[in-house]
Amino acid sequence: MNYRFSTRLDTFSSSAVREILKLTQKKSIISFAGGLPAEEHFPVAAIGEAFDRVLAAGNKALQYGLTEGYLPLRESICKWMGRKGITVTPDDMLLTTGSQQAIDLLSRIYIDAGDVILVEKPTYLSALQVFRSYGATLVSVETDEDGMVLEDLESKLKQYRPKLVYVIPTFSNPTGQAWSLERRQGVLKLCRESDSLILEDDPYGELKFGDASVTYPSIFSLDQHPAGSCVVYTSTFSKTVAPALRTGWVMADPDIIRHMARAKQAADLHSSSLDQQTLYQLMEHFDLDGHIEFVRKEYEIRMRQMADQLKQQQWPGVTWNEPKGGMFFWLELPESVDTGELLKTAVDLGVAFVPGVSFFAEDNSPRNRMRMNFTHNDFEGTVAGMKRLSQAMETVLVK
Amino acid sequence: MNYRFSTRLDTFSSSAVREILKLTQKKSIISFAGGLPAEEHFPVAAIGEAFDRVLAAGNKALQYGLTEGYLPLRESICKWMGRKGITVTPDDMLLTTGSQQAIDLLSRIYIDAGDVILVEKPTYLSALQVFRSYGATLVSVETDEDGMVLEDLESKLKQYRPKLVYVIPTFSNPTGQAWSLERRQGVLKLCRESDSLILEDDPYGELKFGDASVTYPSIFSLDQHPAGSCVVYTSTFSKTVAPALRTGWVMADPDIIRHMARAKQAADLHSSSLDQQTLYQLMEHFDLDGHIEFVRKEYEIRMRQMADQLKQQQWPGVTWNEPKGGMFFWLELPESVDTGELLKTAVDLGVAFVPGVSFFAEDNSPRNRMRMNFTHNDFEGTVAGMKRLSQAMETVLVK
Repeated sequence: MNYRFSTRLDTFSSSAVREILKLTQKKSIISFAGGLPAEEHFPVAAIGEAFDRVLAAGNKALQYGLTEGYLPLRESICKWMGRKGITVTPDDMLLTTGSQQAIDLLSRIYIDAGDVILVEKPTYLSALQVFRSYGATLVSVETDEDGMVLEDLESKLKQYRPKLVYVIPTFSNPTGQAWSLERRQGVLKLCRESDSLILEDDPYGELKFGDASVTYPSIFSLDQHPAGSCVVYTSTFSKTVAPALRTGWVMADPDIIRHMARAKQAADLHSSSLDQQTLYQLMEHFDLDGHIEFVRKEYEIRMRQMADQLKQQQWPGVTWNEPKGGMFFWLELPESVDTGELLKTAVDLGVAFVPGVSFFAEDNSPRNRMRMNFTHNDFEGTVAGMKRLSQAMETVLVK
Repeated sequence: MNYRFSTRLDTFSSSAVREILKLTQKKSIISFAGGLPAEEHFPVAAIGEAFDRVLAAGNKALQYGLTEGYLPLRESICKWMGRKGITVTPDDMLLTTGSQQAIDLLSRIYIDAGDVILVEKPTYLSALQVFRSYGATLVSVETDEDGMVLEDLESKLKQYRPKLVYVIPTFSNPTGQAWSLERRQGVLKLCRESDSLILEDDPYGELKFGDASVTYPSIFSLDQHPAGSCVVYTSTFSKTVAPALRTGWVMADPDIIRHMARAKQAADLHSSSLDQQTLYQLMEHFDLDGHIEFVRKEYEIRMRQMADQLKQQQWPGVTWNEPKGGMFFWLELPESVDTGELLKTAVDLGVAFVPGVSFFAEDNSPRNRMRMNFTHNDFEGTVAGMKRLSQAMETVLVK
């Protein structure tokens, strides 16, 4: 049998995350690679109780559900978003298999081959992979610690008239930084003027460190919405409750949601309604905000522990900024270092991270960056992993 | 904001299943429309116990999982398929969000715009929708009660050199018929000779009625496999356990599985691993085969009840064959009747079905067919629904 695969096949060749997730299954490796939450914080008992409530409600809980997702959960999320100053209705919302699926479904209804998508420099690697699979041309916008550089964005909006601008403004993957209010407002204004849709990916917004009085309003909340909104917003329960329930949500103009729901119907009919019902019961009967506050504090402790470790190492020529939230440190190494090569040495020594090159849209991007997760390992794991990483660093860094 | 949707958007316009699922949420409607299992047969207690076992195993159960799916469940399915004479390993298998996603992912890696896909006449409407969304040209092969007509298939394989041939050989959706062994072997031989991949969709294979000694081997089991197989096989737990767990599987040559896994990584990283772990525990500790035998018998009773009802109505000019398994009756009405129009009258009278035209690939297909589900309603519901349907029929049938 001679297989005749589609021309699209080559766009799926990058499988960094997949290989990373495989690595983390090996017990001998201490992984700073995947964006994994800390397992010991998962609210296992509460999820068990929530599930019992779902089944107690009767057999109908196990039947097919709506493509748009379990209505009571959409209503609960609306109420929850309302307390953050975002007014949406269940019709402005679609439940997805993680926010990854939201990125995919929006691409499916919005992107034709050859369309330009602007992204941050650097940005989430699996979003790049999705966009490439639809034949999009990816262009990076210069990004500093306050967010996208508005002059560069304005120039590229004019030059490319992109259909979509993909951003992670709050605790970026991979950099851990947060955009200033001025940049959020500026990007919104520029994109609206040029009819470029913004996809705001916000998996980490709840995981904020430092001064509690500092807030980062989502770009979606700054926009007129829901009707005619130029922002599509997606988030997930993966980082605040648990990834195994694979439940994300996307909010947008109801026209966009309606089209995404049709694409979802073709893709998988609907996501697990058992998981959605469990999350609904969890939101009703569990102090989710209290749990998130607990997780947030624990992650801030882990972030500071890794920051201390990084300071102690004194790796020559290696720089980084303290993350303002989220899950990652982003390190810059001397230009001579290829972190892809460093990873091979590191894995031999029993420690993993993600080479930075995967987070850039363009070929010939810097090869001397790396992303390190600080949420998954406990203190002992972090210390042991850093020791192994130091051994690997010694092979490439000049003292 | 002026939205600039993709050209692909129009391919998602058909949303018959979605609207059907919405209809069934209204309590006043008796629905023969959706392919819904009987809720009262769902093994609720066993699913609850299985879930408890998953959580008892510890926090790790709630972490991110592999794109390919939970390995122990893949192993259990392999063992289960082994007892049906199919030898596969977990590397030949991908777990999906229902078998709908298997159809989508295979299309994603195999189909380019303009490629020809051959399908049965009629066939599953949501598969048609997926294929159209990838720009495929759909061509129907003549189908009689024994399956695809080999002469027509041979001629169309030569004429179109299709990349894919999509079939539901065992208890077809929508016709409820089963292919003869000779047709299965014939289609396999012809497709292998012309390098056309077969996608065998088998959600209903376990739901066989009538003489227990009659068996219907899957086309996949007749092929050399896994290496170089020309059959991709997909099935699901939706009809045998419960749809809300949204778990299907696809088996194929490991090369095809590897590429589908990469496409799945972009689409949603992975399906609900909580559902997959629950199904694994269910397969380990619950008599799944006994449960399926129970459901099968109940469905056969319901099929015979609806057959009796259909006979009693004596609708002039309406013909049908008794289903050999699965979930559906397929009715042919007089040529003058448009079942799309009939549905409007029927819904006004409080009963729903699916107009047949959605199950045909070509425009200008017969408009006088309809699909009726017999598994979801109990006897009282079926009798009441048939009464309402008879009232609707009276408006279009000449006595």
